[in-house]
Amino acid sequence: MSSSLLKSLKAIAAISCYYSSKRIKIRSASGILLGWSLFSTKDSPTDFIQSFVQGEGSQPNFTKFMAEPVTSSEEIKTKMGEMTAKMELMIMGVQAEFCKALEAEEEGGDTFKVDRWIRKEGGGGITCVLQDGQTFEKAGVNISVVSGHLPSAAVTQMRSRGKNLKEGASLPFFAAGISSVIHPRNPMVPTIHFNYRYFEVRDPTDSSVQWWFGGGTDLTPYYLNESDCQHFHKTLKNACDKHDKTYYKKFKKWCDDYFHVTHRGERRGVGGIFFDDLDTPSKEEAFAFVTECARAVIPSYIPLVKKHKDDGYGYAERQWQLLRRGRYVEFNLIYDRGTKFGLFTPGARYESILMSLPLTAKWEYMHSPKEGSREALLTEVLKNPKDWV
Amino acid sequence: MSSSLLKSLKAIAAISCYYSSKRIKIRSASGILLGWSLFSTKDSPTDFIQSFVQGEGSQPNFTKFMAEPVTSSEEIKTKMGEMTAKMELMIMGVQAEFCKALEAEEEGGDTFKVDRWIRKEGGGGITCVLQDGQTFEKAGVNISVVSGHLPSAAVTQMRSRGKNLKEGASLPFFAAGISSVIHPRNPMVPTIHFNYRYFEVRDPTDSSVQWWFGGGTDLTPYYLNESDCQHFHKTLKNACDKHDKTYYKKFKKWCDDYFHVTHRGERRGVGGIFFDDLDTPSKEEAFAFVTECARAVIPSYIPLVKKHKDDGYGYAERQWQLLRRGRYVEFNLIYDRGTKFGLFTPGARYESILMSLPLTAKWEYMHSPKEGSREALLTEVLKNPKDWV
Repeated sequence: MSSSLLKSLKAIAAISCYYSSKRIKIRSASGILLGWSLFSTKDSPTDFIQSFVQGEGSQPNFTKFMAEPVTSSEEIKTKMGEMTAKMELMIMGVQAEFCKALEAEEEGGDTFKVDRWIRKEGGGGITCVLQDGQTFEKAGVNISVVSGHLPSAAVTQMRSRGKNLKEGASLPFFAAGISSVIHPRNPMVPTIHFNYRYFEVRDPTDSSVQWWFGGGTDLTPYYLNESDCQHFHKTLKNACDKHDKTYYKKFKKWCDDYFHVTHRGERRGVGGIFFDDLDTPSKEEAFAFVTECARAVIPSYIPLVKKHKDDGYGYAERQWQLLRRGRYVEFNLIYDRGTKFGLFTPGARYESILMSLPLTAKWEYMHSPKEGSREALLTEVLKNPKDWV
Repeated sequence: MSSSLLKSLKAIAAISCYYSSKRIKIRSASGILLGWSLFSTKDSPTDFIQSFVQGEGSQPNFTKFMAEPVTSSEEIKTKMGEMTAKMELMIMGVQAEFCKALEAEEEGGDTFKVDRWIRKEGGGGITCVLQDGQTFEKAGVNISVVSGHLPSAAVTQMRSRGKNLKEGASLPFFAAGISSVIHPRNPMVPTIHFNYRYFEVRDPTDSSVQWWFGGGTDLTPYYLNESDCQHFHKTLKNACDKHDKTYYKKFKKWCDDYFHVTHRGERRGVGGIFFDDLDTPSKEEAFAFVTECARAVIPSYIPLVKKHKDDGYGYAERQWQLLRRGRYVEFNLIYDRGTKFGLFTPGARYESILMSLPLTAKWEYMHSPKEGSREALLTEVLKNPKDWV
């Protein structure tokens, strides 16, 4: 058995610990990549959550997470049937799985620094960052569970998206989400971003609640590898198709439209899926879909890390990667709704919001890749998004 | 005579070519820094403009500028008495003077790349960038002279600032300005930014014109040197005091308020002056004031470059400089009105707008300078702006 195959199998074994062994199916005969691609989350969201809970009944124990949940164990225990608690536990599970999967790629043994923070206005979060590793230059996996009153500007913005909310009112809300950006060191490994969130707004006059889910996963390569893009999109499409055959096409387009660095006429990367305001067909169904998407991150991405993290590259490739990271910063600080909503929220923890920024970025005046170069090939796809599956 | 003094005198001699020799007064007895500090623009804006025009009368010749003016020589000739032409020639003069002063600090002989660009919606600009020099890592000096119709969003924004403009109308406008950001390589040399602009909006129903000037100059050091800050602010105060004794105090506070990275509770740098909507006491007086400020950039800044460009520094100081440049990017992309106005203007030349971004920037999660360090000393002043004069 080749040493790289052995390494890959060892890494998978490490991740497998985070699944119950009967659930994961690795088809090693078809190679590692295909194996992951066909990996399917057959367990229900409830099973997934339960796999992190030890000591059933009145004394739940959450030692498999990266930290204690934001909501106290006592409180969560009484709310296990409610979406607020289910969402919190699901995103904490995804955070733990993904962090462990990333750590397994760090042969130098680098691990995530875990910060559990409390927001004085209500709620808090758990921010996990691995910085200056051998494989990952900066990797952030953040969950937040916050509640309080929406500023009226946020209400206006939501109304403009069609939400039936009282103008000018200060409305109680709850939001829970996971957000992650991974910037690898090797320019041949793409950057990935994903974010899945649940939102509730309460009308204090009649106690009615509006709720919705949102999220997405998208890939930003520095060099184009078509089979990587196909694998990534195929994995997302599989996740979508299990819930609604119309989702992938719609959410892929939404992603291309959203991650648009408008002033440059370029997309941030090769896309993925993006959606918001999802409140159909039912709360449980939408939650199952979001859980499916969040759990598809590992099989969509980790194979690309394994495949390319030891690829050769030189100074020129590194410089191109840094320039592209400059564009990533432009998108996040100028256009990204989540970043803006975060930074303009009173009491926001800016270190957690800005963990999405790369360790290093460059801006060269009038840089333009040479015609026919690999850099030009990527740029072409960023200007004219392709269908990958 | 010491070799560094000789070098400095040579550099000044190079700049002097851009002033008529009878106007510049170098008081070398008191040292270079003091000499520049006491330098005073005794000539009027008209004299200043005239010093760039050769071949008087019907055939003006503009070879002393970095490029041909945006407005054709034929057109400018017929408008020499109008503010639109005067402003264009003044900012082109300041651009040429400043670029030459900066080039004189590049001992490797690096010079500015000059791009003259035309905007299909009306007007254009001249962008000068010196990148990867020995003294300057990235230096941009940009002028733009544009006209067209204001998008209605811009009209709304101007109305919110008290401008008496027709809501929802598409109004003809003219804007001319100079904008510059200089990022030196040595962390002991501060970054400077300045911008001076003239705006006209016409009411098409009665042809009445609203006009105003705006601008400012501000300094962003990486390490605090109190005498540098005093010199910088004193030079700006001198320029203000010649026109209105109340300006400096007011515009210094405005600058501290404007360059606020709100989410971090830090100012971008140690301030300077900032103002907008200036339409008093008269158009000519306001123009003279803006010209004075724009011409104060060289004496406020070049002495600091000379003083520190050969200072010793190491890896740690460079890393701190890169982190602070990350904050600079945050301000420019999240808060700066000019950058946003620019990027959201149809047909904007984004390369000229984004030349303000540093060549390289860094973002470290949870970086915090050690208590009592020079980095902490700077941070303290950024959190609590000081009076320097």
